[in-house]
Amino acid sequence: MTENEYIKEHFPLLSEIDSPADLKKLSVDRLPAVCDELRRFMIHELSTNPGHFASSMGAVEIVVALHYVMDTPHDRIVWDVGHQAYAHKILTGRRDQFHSNRKRGGLSGFPNPLESEYDTFVAGHASNSISAALGMSVASKMSEKVEPGRHVVAVIGDASIGGGLAFEGINNAAIHDNNLMIVLNDNDMSIDRPVGSLSRYMTRLSTSKGYNNMRYKTYNFMRRHHMIGDSGKGIVLRFNNAMKSMLTGQQNIFEGLNIRYFGPFDGHDVKALVKLFNEVKEMTGPKILHLHTKKGKGFEPAEKDPTTWHAPGKFDENTGERPKRTPSPDTPPKYQDVMGRTLVELAKDDERVVGITAAMPGGTSMCFMQEEFPRRTFDVGISEGHAVTFAGGLAKEGKLPFVAIYSSFLQRAYDHIIHDVAIARLPVTFVIDRGGLVGEDGVTHHGLFDLAYMRTVPGMVVSAPMNEHWLRNLMFTAHRRADGPMAIRYPRGSGVLGQWRNEMEEVEIGRGRRLAEGDEVAILSLGHIGNNVARAVESLANEGIRVGHYDMVFLKPLDEAIVKEAASRYRWIITVEDGTTVGGLGSAVAEWLAEHETPCRLVKMGVPDTFIDQGTVAELQACCHIDAEGIANQVKELINLNRNK
Amino acid sequence: MTENEYIKEHFPLLSEIDSPADLKKLSVDRLPAVCDELRRFMIHELSTNPGHFASSMGAVEIVVALHYVMDTPHDRIVWDVGHQAYAHKILTGRRDQFHSNRKRGGLSGFPNPLESEYDTFVAGHASNSISAALGMSVASKMSEKVEPGRHVVAVIGDASIGGGLAFEGINNAAIHDNNLMIVLNDNDMSIDRPVGSLSRYMTRLSTSKGYNNMRYKTYNFMRRHHMIGDSGKGIVLRFNNAMKSMLTGQQNIFEGLNIRYFGPFDGHDVKALVKLFNEVKEMTGPKILHLHTKKGKGFEPAEKDPTTWHAPGKFDENTGERPKRTPSPDTPPKYQDVMGRTLVELAKDDERVVGITAAMPGGTSMCFMQEEFPRRTFDVGISEGHAVTFAGGLAKEGKLPFVAIYSSFLQRAYDHIIHDVAIARLPVTFVIDRGGLVGEDGVTHHGLFDLAYMRTVPGMVVSAPMNEHWLRNLMFTAHRRADGPMAIRYPRGSGVLGQWRNEMEEVEIGRGRRLAEGDEVAILSLGHIGNNVARAVESLANEGIRVGHYDMVFLKPLDEAIVKEAASRYRWIITVEDGTTVGGLGSAVAEWLAEHETPCRLVKMGVPDTFIDQGTVAELQACCHIDAEGIANQVKELINLNRNK
Repeated sequence: MTENEYIKEHFPLLSEIDSPADLKKLSVDRLPAVCDELRRFMIHELSTNPGHFASSMGAVEIVVALHYVMDTPHDRIVWDVGHQAYAHKILTGRRDQFHSNRKRGGLSGFPNPLESEYDTFVAGHASNSISAALGMSVASKMSEKVEPGRHVVAVIGDASIGGGLAFEGINNAAIHDNNLMIVLNDNDMSIDRPVGSLSRYMTRLSTSKGYNNMRYKTYNFMRRHHMIGDSGKGIVLRFNNAMKSMLTGQQNIFEGLNIRYFGPFDGHDVKALVKLFNEVKEMTGPKILHLHTKKGKGFEPAEKDPTTWHAPGKFDENTGERPKRTPSPDTPPKYQDVMGRTLVELAKDDERVVGITAAMPGGTSMCFMQEEFPRRTFDVGISEGHAVTFAGGLAKEGKLPFVAIYSSFLQRAYDHIIHDVAIARLPVTFVIDRGGLVGEDGVTHHGLFDLAYMRTVPGMVVSAPMNEHWLRNLMFTAHRRADGPMAIRYPRGSGVLGQWRNEMEEVEIGRGRRLAEGDEVAILSLGHIGNNVARAVESLANEGIRVGHYDMVFLKPLDEAIVKEAASRYRWIITVEDGTTVGGLGSAVAEWLAEHETPCRLVKMGVPDTFIDQGTVAELQACCHIDAEGIANQVKELINLNRNK
Repeated sequence: MTENEYIKEHFPLLSEIDSPADLKKLSVDRLPAVCDELRRFMIHELSTNPGHFASSMGAVEIVVALHYVMDTPHDRIVWDVGHQAYAHKILTGRRDQFHSNRKRGGLSGFPNPLESEYDTFVAGHASNSISAALGMSVASKMSEKVEPGRHVVAVIGDASIGGGLAFEGINNAAIHDNNLMIVLNDNDMSIDRPVGSLSRYMTRLSTSKGYNNMRYKTYNFMRRHHMIGDSGKGIVLRFNNAMKSMLTGQQNIFEGLNIRYFGPFDGHDVKALVKLFNEVKEMTGPKILHLHTKKGKGFEPAEKDPTTWHAPGKFDENTGERPKRTPSPDTPPKYQDVMGRTLVELAKDDERVVGITAAMPGGTSMCFMQEEFPRRTFDVGISEGHAVTFAGGLAKEGKLPFVAIYSSFLQRAYDHIIHDVAIARLPVTFVIDRGGLVGEDGVTHHGLFDLAYMRTVPGMVVSAPMNEHWLRNLMFTAHRRADGPMAIRYPRGSGVLGQWRNEMEEVEIGRGRRLAEGDEVAILSLGHIGNNVARAVESLANEGIRVGHYDMVFLKPLDEAIVKEAASRYRWIITVEDGTTVGGLGSAVAEWLAEHETPCRLVKMGVPDTFIDQGTVAELQACCHIDAEGIANQVKELINLNRNK
């Protein structure tokens, strides 16, 4: 049986849905079966081609009901953190490409406007959906004279709505003229359990379900009997006030902010959702629908352990069994684990050490610190800006905070790094995870700008370890030094040493090291990518080409002695970094070379000045020519240039 | 009479207060007189040495009562946007230096931890106080074993509390163990009137004053009679719940987020404030005190027109009369006004054009657009991140948003620029105001990083006009082009042309222009600072030294043809930019030079890689050697170097 035949046989409804228009042809009674097929289809596909699992399983009914009720792509659905949106991709003409999800040249794992007109907005960083959808809804209202109005829906999770950007969106939603519908997909669970008072608050809201239901029913009754209309804001507000005085009302946060609130409702009752969306969609003004869902819904192992099943890797589609990895003691650990374990070591020796994560205790391995020192570990939720400013406050009072945030998410805190840490020279250490190309998560998740943006910050020490020992030494040094901010940046994935737990040593700030001497070309690399350089150097040596290699360790302060030495002894310098070539190591070295008398010329290697889609890290490095082969080829090209002169 | 004698005679109480300890010696009955003297002192000083006026006038009683009740500097007061904190500076040992406020070498206009131990945290960008103070309060609780606990107070305005960072702080406040006190200084007025639902909400809160007062009194009664204690969170929560069921309660937003709320109270009754702070300060857990104040309080002209009196310039201390400026038609306009007027012109021709400001319609001159096209102009409050993402949503639906934000505040939106605009190549134009050294506002307000951080963004066009015509041409070009994001960056203050309203022309993206030819040295400048270069070139010409000068107009894409021409014809290239020398124009030119065969050497001029304090723009430019004289001297130095070879 071909894959196509398998799909036809096992997913009879789904295989006939090539666009939301096909979905709309079905009677509402068939929708539960569509949901069931979608779930089974995702299980089938994701068991062999890993991706985000539990979020998308939980959002199936929301996806189906929205596409059934709304007229997409004319109407807009904005997904917040798009890994809840697989079913959306499958229903909007991408079922047959779904096997290429997260692969190079295939579908993006997140909504991508450049991939499909159904994907309305970039959705890799949390909390942006309300602001973006508000812009769309306002634009639609402004253009109603020239084109038909649109319904605009933002679908946001309960963890994302705790981010400052989401609050700013909500705080502005009632100000402008718009009909935005916010669907709060509340599964009480981000990647790890969400934190923050808003999250607790929403749990309490659920307990007032009876009251909210009554309000909702009353509203519908009044609307059906034309006791109230939807033609103007005034009426809406008066209605709200009327309700409040009619019922002995708790006023809720969203209504305090002038957004009509309905819920909580069961987010897995697809027929009820269709009814709800139909009833609410023509309402004027912003409104929020609070739906309860279960992460991993429909696959028992995932329902039981949604954190593991956020992105489970391959699994058996029947049993949920996941291939066991039994690493030998010589298997290099993940950098994040080395960070987490090392932080615990530092914390054991010094009470001042504290750890901060923004909703990623697992992803950053801050969980080790959390287990060992729960009172000295702070998970602040999806609030990168707060994480950094809060760290500044802790540092002001003598603590030594280590802030672990993914490189691309830390972009949210650029101002906070400058204003709340660097100006007052507070000793906050940024352990920046997922620096460089991250692979399958693609364009929104690559950590390509950190070296460049950190280098602009006065007084910031910017470093990147080439292996686990250096990561530990740099953390040790940051701790010992404690006289200003320091960034230590490392990639996703594993290091290179089996025996990673060295005796930590303090290293000299701004001092790199020479790894190899050569003839015409010297390579200056920063961080883990230096291992690709080392491999290139080795393979070139086998061909009789001797290449110099320096591990810079620090981007800032730059080891000018190395640049000077290289410039005086080599004809060419190649810089290699796992990040944008605009503003990082290449630029720093270029500055020195351009300012000094030297015939030595520069070639900058790194990630080119463009956005990079998904693929494996190896594929993407090859594509950027910063794999060992690409680096070796560049060296040979230069040597031939020299020869041909 | 000397100034000292004048002070002694007119401010008998104040002249005896050299630190908060002196304030504490007074009986509480004298505090209104201290407040009166503080107001008169500020009027006296600020009438001749301009600064922020209305905010600090409104916060006098809060400052006095806090220092009277708290044990500063052991206890911590964190001011949010420090221009409310002049009275704090005056009471904490800086009365006699206050005449140097905002001057080079003098006092910073904002709290500055490097200036005084009473200034606990950097406070130039809004909304950071809660996160920072929370860090301090948590640190204090953690360290109670080894050092005495501290009271930590964040004082935040009603506009600042609408920022996403403040929300993130509040959302985390009830999660960790702390006793944070938040004082909400609600004057219903930021620089312009605050926007957002939270702001409206607070107005409504005020109407429930009777209810809140009753709650507060009941609480105090119960506490005094030991019916409730403050020893644990559990009790606090139970108390809250008890209150709620006791009274037919509106639940308010802050309590929904588990922060105890008290208020609103009169923020100008200093004796009542002392009582309030004393009663509340030993309460465990986070709490918020909502105080009503009047901006400009105690000076009638300022009370009547707080927007003008936010920073009024010089004035007559008796009448409030402000020296009239009657500009001749040949006086160059402010860049911000040229932006505002030009945007109106573009908007008249094209319905798609919309304007966005983040709480600064006056400061950015977006007010012109607001007056002409109120429905096409969006003031989103202090929410730079939202401003950018919202613009992305508008652009997605065919609008052409111009987002006007100060350079240093736009740092808050770095991620939003990348993630919500650049990845999807949305046509959002960033009109970046206050780029470069801004003068008296000092370290937190200089716009020094924008060129560098914008250059890292793939697909971003980065430009800076040298005069008003170029600003208009660049805006015109951004509008015509409309195929991706573009940044147009200009400084605080005035342009150089009297007749600024030219017929706008489209210019070629990435194309600079040659202004002068020379012999040994070429200067490549970007933006308005090029006028300093032009003056240097002219003065050197008078000395017989011919210098080449190019106005690059664009940082990205860089006009490589110019760099190539300069490198081939000159011995030296000097880059001049009004921004950090790390990552901006100097780096871009360095990259080209280092990558190509050329004997031409580079000197980067700009703002050095350090934080720069306040002073006049002229003083600071001189100090960075980017005034005409500094530039001319650099040229001469290079020429002498050449001669001596």
